[in-house]
Amino acid sequence: MRSTPRTEAFPAHTPAAAQIFTTVLSHGPLTRSDMAGRAGLSAAAVTKAVRPLIEAGYLVEEAGDEARPALGRPANSVRVDGGRALFIGVKVTGDEIIAVLTDLCCRIRVARHVPLRAREPQPVLTAVADLVQELLAEADGFGVQVQGIGVAVSGDVDRAAGEVRLSPFLDWHDLPLAELVEMTTGLPVTVDNDVRALTVAEQWFGAGVGLSDFAVVTVGAGIGCGLVVHGKVVSGAHGVAGEIGHVVIDPTGPLCHCGNRGCAEAIAADPAIVTAVREATGRPVADAAQAVELARRGDPGAREVYARAGDAIGRAIATVANLMGPERVIISGEGLAAYDLFAGQIRDAFAASAFGTAARCDLLTRPLPFDEWARGAAATAIQSFIGGPPHGTG
Amino acid sequence: MRSTPRTEAFPAHTPAAAQIFTTVLSHGPLTRSDMAGRAGLSAAAVTKAVRPLIEAGYLVEEAGDEARPALGRPANSVRVDGGRALFIGVKVTGDEIIAVLTDLCCRIRVARHVPLRAREPQPVLTAVADLVQELLAEADGFGVQVQGIGVAVSGDVDRAAGEVRLSPFLDWHDLPLAELVEMTTGLPVTVDNDVRALTVAEQWFGAGVGLSDFAVVTVGAGIGCGLVVHGKVVSGAHGVAGEIGHVVIDPTGPLCHCGNRGCAEAIAADPAIVTAVREATGRPVADAAQAVELARRGDPGAREVYARAGDAIGRAIATVANLMGPERVIISGEGLAAYDLFAGQIRDAFAASAFGTAARCDLLTRPLPFDEWARGAAATAIQSFIGGPPHGTG
Repeated sequence: MRSTPRTEAFPAHTPAAAQIFTTVLSHGPLTRSDMAGRAGLSAAAVTKAVRPLIEAGYLVEEAGDEARPALGRPANSVRVDGGRALFIGVKVTGDEIIAVLTDLCCRIRVARHVPLRAREPQPVLTAVADLVQELLAEADGFGVQVQGIGVAVSGDVDRAAGEVRLSPFLDWHDLPLAELVEMTTGLPVTVDNDVRALTVAEQWFGAGVGLSDFAVVTVGAGIGCGLVVHGKVVSGAHGVAGEIGHVVIDPTGPLCHCGNRGCAEAIAADPAIVTAVREATGRPVADAAQAVELARRGDPGAREVYARAGDAIGRAIATVANLMGPERVIISGEGLAAYDLFAGQIRDAFAASAFGTAARCDLLTRPLPFDEWARGAAATAIQSFIGGPPHGTG
Repeated sequence: MRSTPRTEAFPAHTPAAAQIFTTVLSHGPLTRSDMAGRAGLSAAAVTKAVRPLIEAGYLVEEAGDEARPALGRPANSVRVDGGRALFIGVKVTGDEIIAVLTDLCCRIRVARHVPLRAREPQPVLTAVADLVQELLAEADGFGVQVQGIGVAVSGDVDRAAGEVRLSPFLDWHDLPLAELVEMTTGLPVTVDNDVRALTVAEQWFGAGVGLSDFAVVTVGAGIGCGLVVHGKVVSGAHGVAGEIGHVVIDPTGPLCHCGNRGCAEAIAADPAIVTAVREATGRPVADAAQAVELARRGDPGAREVYARAGDAIGRAIATVANLMGPERVIISGEGLAAYDLFAGQIRDAFAASAFGTAARCDLLTRPLPFDEWARGAAATAIQSFIGGPPHGTG
């Protein structure tokens, strides 16, 4: 066992300083006056907040210092030094664990995948701890300290409490995951719902940069949604939000694991598609890959199942657009592998169901492999590091 | 015609000062240290922001000034002087115009209703101008200046542009309403969607005070929804948001004016209920009051229509809860007159359709007569006055 690593405090002592750093992280390099304009702060406040961040090496002046005017504030740009700190992001799916080592700019330096042999908390925790140790060893090679770990799982996750309240795929209930991972790694741990974590990464570094209102919709084993409203990820007053998978599309449709009928997830998630293709074709289709193959070969029953799934996804996205009015919806998830089979239906159903100007919302497809989801987990760790101390460090 | 009134500039020169004033408006009286804590600002910043507001008479020190400590900041509380300024709020329904004169704390001082004789923009504008002149005459009696007018109408309203893009009930399209009312009154005008305006009033002065995430759902001639997320009313990137009336409940249900089938509004709004009761009972029911009466007398067909409407409303509210995770949903609107007929179905359908902890959301019914909607319009005028100059004053 390695000795417990030592983490340091991030020198942003006010919410404004953390906000300025985040702005540079997403939009940098920026001049101080750019930062002031974007953050709605005075130039003096920005200069004061930036100084300790530069002194500690988290921000660096861009080249051109020599040209600094003799009087007045320096006009050159400031950027984040990505190499100043490292983070680990872990995504646990029902089949494997994906872990990445990222820098402070959330660029992936190392990625590791291991199959999940059992879904009970103890073997998963052991596998996570082993992966983290591997990545900490890699981090030694960079000579930079890992400052935190993010762990993302699907389901109802209470980030503030560090608990997984319910993860149906893993069959976890009320698991104090942050505390458990902190105990085995000695590092601050942030746990979050996997789609929300992916949404943080999209907001800071992806297709959501610069947007105050957008959604990430993921299709695959389940159907999930991360929402950003007024520039912040929506978590819900009681921890549940973005449950687009349980928008009811057809009240006479297939039974959903939530107890209702015809939820989007019961029509358009991979397991629902596989079941429906089996029923429609009478063939022993084992998984989504086989279902896709059958549909691509032109089987009319399989094609009809994908058409229905696309219609359900498009209607569910329209419901989000009608309620929230996002500027953009980013469609992703492993289900994009079948996108050619239902893209038309998604767009048609969205156009038919979006109300008024909500239809102007931009639908963007964006393949984000599981490495990117693990990167999302790392983004939540970066967020905790920048924004203040995480919930009860171990 | 009266001479053009003169308005004054509100002495909050930064977003932080406007925020502090709003906090005192909703939560006052507050000490300066309370304000600093709630706003996340330093005591010095609060003292600096409060001083010009006290000097101009918008904030006043509570009694007890004599006890002020000889050294240090005064510890006594500060409150808004409601009588310092007056505002006019106007709500236009399909049948009448309701206008209220309120003080700066949005307390109604005078209310006026006039029937709407024609829905074309010109006669409505004339009637609004007449009502505003009446209320300006009343304001003279208070010896206080009216600082702004808010006008609320249903439909797709672009507050920033001051335009009604589409109001189906009034059949208005792309009407520059703010500019037109400014021309006839000489006062700054804010126009907004009526449910959003009501939501502003609930957030600042009603059942939403202190909540960062809540929804107002109104049932009646239509089904509307105002959403507050992260402490701010959601307007949508393209102006549409909160369209709970177009959550599809039953894709085989009645045709909706939006072109889809089985929208909540096509099942549970008053016109849909009247039509369905006529079909179910064969009786020539003329309006919602007669439909309610028939159901209260125990007619099984009419009762079944209300049960279906309650089920649709409950499912639509659950969709909002599953996506946004609000702390509370405030149910209001003239449809509450029938609440005894579908309250049970609303709660049952909500409980069955809410996912996980989203079911913990508090459902609160709150009768808000049209005077309160007009008050919501006044609240948007107060908001514009506090927060900065409105879109192009006339």
